[in-house]
Amino acid sequence: MKLLEDRIRKDGIVKAGNILKVDSFLNHQMDVKLFREMGKEWKRLFKDAGVNKILTIEASGIGIACVVAEEFDVPVVFAKKTQSLNIDGDVYSSKVTSFTKKKVYDIMVSKKYLSPEDRVLIIDDFLANGCAVDGLSDLIVESGATLVGVGIAIEKGFQTGGKVLRDKGIHLESLAIVESMNDETGEIIFREQ
Amino acid sequence: MKLLEDRIRKDGIVKAGNILKVDSFLNHQMDVKLFREMGKEWKRLFKDAGVNKILTIEASGIGIACVVAEEFDVPVVFAKKTQSLNIDGDVYSSKVTSFTKKKVYDIMVSKKYLSPEDRVLIIDDFLANGCAVDGLSDLIVESGATLVGVGIAIEKGFQTGGKVLRDKGIHLESLAIVESMNDETGEIIFREQ
Repeated sequence: MKLLEDRIRKDGIVKAGNILKVDSFLNHQMDVKLFREMGKEWKRLFKDAGVNKILTIEASGIGIACVVAEEFDVPVVFAKKTQSLNIDGDVYSSKVTSFTKKKVYDIMVSKKYLSPEDRVLIIDDFLANGCAVDGLSDLIVESGATLVGVGIAIEKGFQTGGKVLRDKGIHLESLAIVESMNDETGEIIFREQ
Repeated sequence: MKLLEDRIRKDGIVKAGNILKVDSFLNHQMDVKLFREMGKEWKRLFKDAGVNKILTIEASGIGIACVVAEEFDVPVVFAKKTQSLNIDGDVYSSKVTSFTKKKVYDIMVSKKYLSPEDRVLIIDDFLANGCAVDGLSDLIVESGATLVGVGIAIEKGFQTGGKVLRDKGIHLESLAIVESMNDETGEIIFREQ
């Protein structure tokens, strides 16, 4: 998606350790007008998937997912990362390893909000090694729902997550795929799509 | 806001310990159509406030804030609850005590995303003792920005947060104020507004 690639080139900052900071528009400060355009693009790409629920994970996926959900006219469910007193014990759960925070955490969704009738589109800001999507997929499988696709804002194409999902036959649509980036020059090369 | 009160009566669940569960539409599964109507109402209530940024706190405020931000045509910034490797050290920070999780945590916003030119509307899902809003206000004061108002989905009117904010002269607009609730009968009484 050229609009997103252009924005990443303009405002993204490449840091050592393969870190791409896009917190000025995607995951700390959030440009909701950009999210709206991303939502329209995913709606176009998944228009025949029969999506009736969007699943994401706290925290940075939630804003994108909510704007996107309006395009599909469906509710959003977000997986929570820690046990809260406000969540019933009756949950689907899995584990995720965070690339940026370098730790393993539990994720969970109340059993009330995923069921076999659900056709779920996963939305998240980043795809790197794919651990977050794997964890969310576990919750979907456990619930008997159907995973109909995965929409990612920025895929790190030099890590394995995207390839693994595509090899499994999962319909993955990453709006920008970073093929390589250079923290000395700041240059970012995107995969042709 | 009658639409929100009706929804709380229909789908909210009163639990012992003054807990009101609204996770079927507000803060776990999220009804973005409802968020859109809430956004329109806050836009009406804060139309003269010159809002140019919305500030919220992860995780459950983010979805509401993003939909609301479209009504105001401004960006959202969300305060993060834990240090992430993706956040620069240069942050405004404060502390918040969580009512539901019964613990104290640090919150922070990058100094890049709050500045003296900002006229900030705080948006959050719940107001009880007001600790989250206090913490967010600290960040705004520290940055030199102006707090122009606070928009809350559900205020627990029997706790002190709302009164304290109003006594300080802060423009607070809670779309539903729960005056009392009964976990045995499930009855919820709202304050007339």
